[in-house]
Amino acid sequence: MTLDLEAIYIDLHRNPELSFQETRTAGVIAAHLTALGIEHETGIGKTGIAAVIRNGDGPVVWLRADMDALPVKEETGLDYASTARGIDPEGTDVPVMHACGHDMHVTAMLGALEQLQATTDKWSGTIVAVFQPAEEYGSGAQAMIADDVLTRFPKPTIVLGQHLAPLPAGTIGVRSGAQMAASDGLHVVLHGRGGHGSRPDTTIDPVVMAAATVMRLQTIVSRETDPREMAVVTVGSMHAGLKNNIIPATATIDISLRYPNDTARQGVMNKVEHIIKAEALASGATEEPTIEILHTLPPTINDLEATDRLIFAWETAFGEDAVLDPGMFTGSEDVSWLATEAGVPLVYWFWGGVEPEAFAAAMAAGTAEADIPSNHSPFFAPILHPTIERGVDALVIAAREFLN
Amino acid sequence: MTLDLEAIYIDLHRNPELSFQETRTAGVIAAHLTALGIEHETGIGKTGIAAVIRNGDGPVVWLRADMDALPVKEETGLDYASTARGIDPEGTDVPVMHACGHDMHVTAMLGALEQLQATTDKWSGTIVAVFQPAEEYGSGAQAMIADDVLTRFPKPTIVLGQHLAPLPAGTIGVRSGAQMAASDGLHVVLHGRGGHGSRPDTTIDPVVMAAATVMRLQTIVSRETDPREMAVVTVGSMHAGLKNNIIPATATIDISLRYPNDTARQGVMNKVEHIIKAEALASGATEEPTIEILHTLPPTINDLEATDRLIFAWETAFGEDAVLDPGMFTGSEDVSWLATEAGVPLVYWFWGGVEPEAFAAAMAAGTAEADIPSNHSPFFAPILHPTIERGVDALVIAAREFLN
Amino acid sequence: MTLDLEAIYIDLHRNPELSFQETRTAGVIAAHLTALGIEHETGIGKTGIAAVIRNGDGPVVWLRADMDALPVKEETGLDYASTARGIDPEGTDVPVMHACGHDMHVTAMLGALEQLQATTDKWSGTIVAVFQPAEEYGSGAQAMIADDVLTRFPKPTIVLGQHLAPLPAGTIGVRSGAQMAASDGLHVVLHGRGGHGSRPDTTIDPVVMAAATVMRLQTIVSRETDPREMAVVTVGSMHAGLKNNIIPATATIDISLRYPNDTARQGVMNKVEHIIKAEALASGATEEPTIEILHTLPPTINDLEATDRLIFAWETAFGEDAVLDPGMFTGSEDVSWLATEAGVPLVYWFWGGVEPEAFAAAMAAGTAEADIPSNHSPFFAPILHPTIERGVDALVIAAREFLN
Amino acid sequence: MTLDLEAIYIDLHRNPELSFQETRTAGVIAAHLTALGIEHETGIGKTGIAAVIRNGDGPVVWLRADMDALPVKEETGLDYASTARGIDPEGTDVPVMHACGHDMHVTAMLGALEQLQATTDKWSGTIVAVFQPAEEYGSGAQAMIADDVLTRFPKPTIVLGQHLAPLPAGTIGVRSGAQMAASDGLHVVLHGRGGHGSRPDTTIDPVVMAAATVMRLQTIVSRETDPREMAVVTVGSMHAGLKNNIIPATATIDISLRYPNDTARQGVMNKVEHIIKAEALASGATEEPTIEILHTLPPTINDLEATDRLIFAWETAFGEDAVLDPGMFTGSEDVSWLATEAGVPLVYWFWGGVEPEAFAAAMAAGTAEADIPSNHSPFFAPILHPTIERGVDALVIAAREFLN
Repeated sequence: MTLDLEAIYIDLHRNPELSFQETRTAGVIAAHLTALGIEHETGIGKTGIAAVIRNGDGPVVWLRADMDALPVKEETGLDYASTARGIDPEGTDVPVMHACGHDMHVTAMLGALEQLQATTDKWSGTIVAVFQPAEEYGSGAQAMIADDVLTRFPKPTIVLGQHLAPLPAGTIGVRSGAQMAASDGLHVVLHGRGGHGSRPDTTIDPVVMAAATVMRLQTIVSRETDPREMAVVTVGSMHAGLKNNIIPATATIDISLRYPNDTARQGVMNKVEHIIKAEALASGATEEPTIEILHTLPPTINDLEATDRLIFAWETAFGEDAVLDPGMFTGSEDVSWLATEAGVPLVYWFWGGVEPEAFAAAMAAGTAEADIPSNHSPFFAPILHPTIERGVDALVIAAREFLN
Repeated sequence: MTLDLEAIYIDLHRNPELSFQETRTAGVIAAHLTALGIEHETGIGKTGIAAVIRNGDGPVVWLRADMDALPVKEETGLDYASTARGIDPEGTDVPVMHACGHDMHVTAMLGALEQLQATTDKWSGTIVAVFQPAEEYGSGAQAMIADDVLTRFPKPTIVLGQHLAPLPAGTIGVRSGAQMAASDGLHVVLHGRGGHGSRPDTTIDPVVMAAATVMRLQTIVSRETDPREMAVVTVGSMHAGLKNNIIPATATIDISLRYPNDTARQGVMNKVEHIIKAEALASGATEEPTIEILHTLPPTINDLEATDRLIFAWETAFGEDAVLDPGMFTGSEDVSWLATEAGVPLVYWFWGGVEPEAFAAAMAAGTAEADIPSNHSPFFAPILHPTIERGVDALVIAAREFLN
Repeated sequence: MTLDLEAIYIDLHRNPELSFQETRTAGVIAAHLTALGIEHETGIGKTGIAAVIRNGDGPVVWLRADMDALPVKEETGLDYASTARGIDPEGTDVPVMHACGHDMHVTAMLGALEQLQATTDKWSGTIVAVFQPAEEYGSGAQAMIADDVLTRFPKPTIVLGQHLAPLPAGTIGVRSGAQMAASDGLHVVLHGRGGHGSRPDTTIDPVVMAAATVMRLQTIVSRETDPREMAVVTVGSMHAGLKNNIIPATATIDISLRYPNDTARQGVMNKVEHIIKAEALASGATEEPTIEILHTLPPTINDLEATDRLIFAWETAFGEDAVLDPGMFTGSEDVSWLATEAGVPLVYWFWGGVEPEAFAAAMAAGTAEADIPSNHSPFFAPILHPTIERGVDALVIAAREFLN
Repeated sequence: MTLDLEAIYIDLHRNPELSFQETRTAGVIAAHLTALGIEHETGIGKTGIAAVIRNGDGPVVWLRADMDALPVKEETGLDYASTARGIDPEGTDVPVMHACGHDMHVTAMLGALEQLQATTDKWSGTIVAVFQPAEEYGSGAQAMIADDVLTRFPKPTIVLGQHLAPLPAGTIGVRSGAQMAASDGLHVVLHGRGGHGSRPDTTIDPVVMAAATVMRLQTIVSRETDPREMAVVTVGSMHAGLKNNIIPATATIDISLRYPNDTARQGVMNKVEHIIKAEALASGATEEPTIEILHTLPPTINDLEATDRLIFAWETAFGEDAVLDPGMFTGSEDVSWLATEAGVPLVYWFWGGVEPEAFAAAMAAGTAEADIPSNHSPFFAPILHPTIERGVDALVIAAREFLN
């Protein structure tokens, strides 16, 4: 191996970048691709990269890794913990952290490309590796598609991708069919009327409007969803005011919605809009709230046949215990756009990064939620080994499976 | 008159500065004082100024004007509207506006000093004019006291001050006894546990904790206060999270409290603390909320005898209709510290800045709340005349009343 | 004295009757009036009584006492505590208690009539004593007016009345001007859609609709009322459902509103209606809530001149310390209808029933709210002496004051 | 056939009885059993009946039907709609309706017993038919067990039962494994302090305490439950107060909880208790809420092998399209106690009562929730045919399947 994957990972982890700002990350990736002699183009969909390894006739397998980090303040206490900061789309200076493992995704992809490049005798066809920006905004895949990634490069016969998850290191989690939820991100502005904190009666208080709205939004899941169906309504962000004694004119809330399919989506979207407007009415607002859809993520549906093939291949390589059904994830992804736009199958899987004994102990103690930091947590910290190796191998085996 | 008060006002209005950052404002004031030949010291309590006019034996009247502006984005549409920005104590870049009229306070004080300086034949004693910083933080008067303003300058026999209010221009509003409320400002951090927006069950959601807390805090006024007593619980600011799909670890709320006296203060403070802790418990929080008192403002109590003297003096000068009882104001002030610390009487009054016919029309139409922008509103825009003149005269007459 | 007032009080206390059901009470009153030889008519406004003592020329003073009790389960532990039950207007069997002291009002009125009858040498004119039903429903005075009480009896020149209050026994509490609040009682039906408790998504849950409505109604007082003005929004009753596992089709809430005057009334009424409808919308209700005004009570305004005369008369008789200004009461009364309908002055006062040392101790300890049961409390228990005597004397002195 | 099943159904429907009050219903059943010559005992578990048909050696199949009705006011508009009323456990007079189809369960059971009695050549063994009281209270099965039904009658080798459901008439809905949820019913008393509606500050308002509690309970499902797991927290009943202007001393809420298994049960129970106590704290309650578990229902788990046998038998008899997997139901049952107490397998299935074309039309229009009344709805109205016949046949086929 030429690449020092551990060093690459630690460097990426220390230097996280927010969505569509992955310029340093893309520079690092391009440098390694160049060093490996792999053909690639940069700047696709703003900061994305596509790399190609051509190896005779055969299928075209697309492998996808996402690159962006999150506005989270790292609290892992690791030597290589991030202290980076960035400017978010609203111009606010925020801490930045790879709290979702995309640094590991990039690292494993680079490792896999090196191996695939070195073992062209074992497969034939074409590999396209996509380093995608802005998965966290749900818009990076579409940005690359809008920038013609599907026509500028060999069209896929299948799209593959993987994501780090709070599973035991060494394991792969995958299931046929519905693997991840559909999702929308909403940005809502509630319009009140500002004034002095001592005279609430001269104002329309947007803080109370926001609070009542958040409480009411809970009822969509608790009362208006079939208890057997999955739905999530999360208000991830709520902002209003600058000072305790000034009632501000507006409040903003950012909502993340999850559902298993498009029918459920329509129902929940209607209810969210309905509640937001009614609660503004209850506050006596004279202006309707502004509701903006920031992004729409499709459900991630794994192709049945292709998934079964991969499960068999991985079980053969890693042992049967290393491949498990993680159930449907309520998280969402924009990887599907690449496959649905091209009209080809997708397989998207998870791989674990948690120290196996710690994982087992937490499960036994029933303290998994408290003790195993999930994605987006400020404590998210995959162990390096065998996480890196298993991520590389999972990709290599999967790619070859469809290139024989 | 030497000073062009209108030009001074417009300049100050265009160049507002946040609390304890009033360096340009202090510079402008000092320049005019120097031009008028009035003795003064700067940098008292960080950015404050005290000026002295000595005129033989007699009482020592302190006149106080505050200088700071607010993090409000001006929306008056005036030619001289502020487009200024500043950095608030948390390092955030914010818009700044004189939305509380302190620019007018400074202007009227400069005008009054010029007149008093020019009419030393009409009074004897000493005038100390205090240009105070950071009234909006409720800590500027204490900062000047801590910087020995009361001992470095002739000790007051009385403290006088005035504030612009949404009353008709030309009028003075004042009452004996309780004139303004006591107040505390609280900064509260609610501690939850962060995580991915799609897995709320792995988190302790601080957004919902904050929303439930805000809703419950309403009951202090609606259920736990004697309906005949004044109390205000305003959550002026609420912040949590950076992104719709990340559940943050904490939320902050900033609360402004108002009460007529110290007994009521204790009751409300207890209830606020009680509710905040109980709602954190209901959320299953494992860490108690952090509650910090940012500032404590005493009630503003006007001396009975001194107020009666001033009312008579103003009625004589301006006509009986020009002096009215505005009732108790629910707003708060830190001017009292100067008088209570010195153990002397205080009179603090309001004067109007609203075009009288517009005021009368709004009252008649019952649309005062909507049509007359109150202090701290982004639309707060006093008319220049006779507001400036009446502010000057009110101060001059008041000062002389106690210097004869 | 012929009448044993203590025995009368105890008998009435043991036998409380709900509004418009005061048949036994009216019977007892009529029996005593007959025994005293006082002319009277019964059945006015269903169960009311008017008695007349004619004593030559002069003014006509109306004295009013109300007779009805409340659906409260007595918990005083007194020997003569009520164990009575009654059927409320919705047909429900409820406990009944004189928790508002109307038994004392009737007792004192009978004692006063006996004295006035016995001392006709000390006054001249006409006394009309009104024993009114259904004050608690706010509709008894109007019922008697509708039954022509004002034309069937000598028209008043003044209307006087008194109410027991949690003041020290021996004291009178009265003030000129606004003495009690205006009030409305609302009955609201929220329409949802019922179903099985395990399938909330097939229903429109009226329990959650009611809960959200109650929480939002708090904001009328906390956010939408000038902090210096009095307003009360109490949901005194809330009912929905019969079983934990059936989601009912409707919920009802009963609301009591208080305000100082008609302008405030209109504002609060609008906001209540607004919030109820908006919260039904937020629940996705397909039918608008039904809002019914059960009763409307005017503000109780004491005539300035007449009140001053009475204060002087009582201070002369009882000592200056025995007459105090209790402030405005947030409770409401329908006694005003008698005076406003006749276009004559009203004086309405309170008298105390709390053991004076216990009262002083509770005030000193700051435990008045916990230790002194207020009207409508299940622990409301006036001491018998001197409460009875002071109630009699207050009425006698007041009547004579206007009959000389 | 001897029995006129349609007439039996209509009679039972017109004469519904609340739980543990099924005396008339039991009388009707006993009369028919006597007429059929079937051995039986009455008064088991207060109002239950067990009937036995002995037919040589072989297994012992228990068939179970429940008998009780609900406090629901029928609004079907049917000729034979119920106008019955009953007295609930708290002594309240309530409307009563067979809104859950237990009248149909009894009818089908009588029809099945007649057929089984008439066809003893086709099976051998013993049939025990259990007519159970108080399924709606979740305590009838336990009452019969406490009354030794399992030892007084031949011990089962399998327990079978069926329930009417909003499925197309003619269909059977059944699944192996988890068929219905576990459930608890809680009765909660919130202790405040009563007082006059105009003085909320002298009280601890239990109405607001209840409202805040209901709003907070929503977060158990919306925030504290894995979105992929089933949980239901329904407040089916909420009661406080008698009058708009009296703040009551207490409020009661009745809660129905649902979960798939015992681990989830413990988590939800803890959270419910936690929230109720914390919200009482937030109200300043001086007495902790009283939480009583009214009943606990186990999950209904269908035996895998036995269920597969029945599915095959029904598909053979009714056609493959007539047997469907209805998914897990979030409703709960106490039928399991009979099987788990005896340590034998259970199969519990649903059969449809909705006119098939109306069902199909509502599904196609996406209006199923609005147009197909579910169990416990006041509009629940199964069509008579083929519902009665299919219920009879399903039981007969099922019983014979295990008696060959």
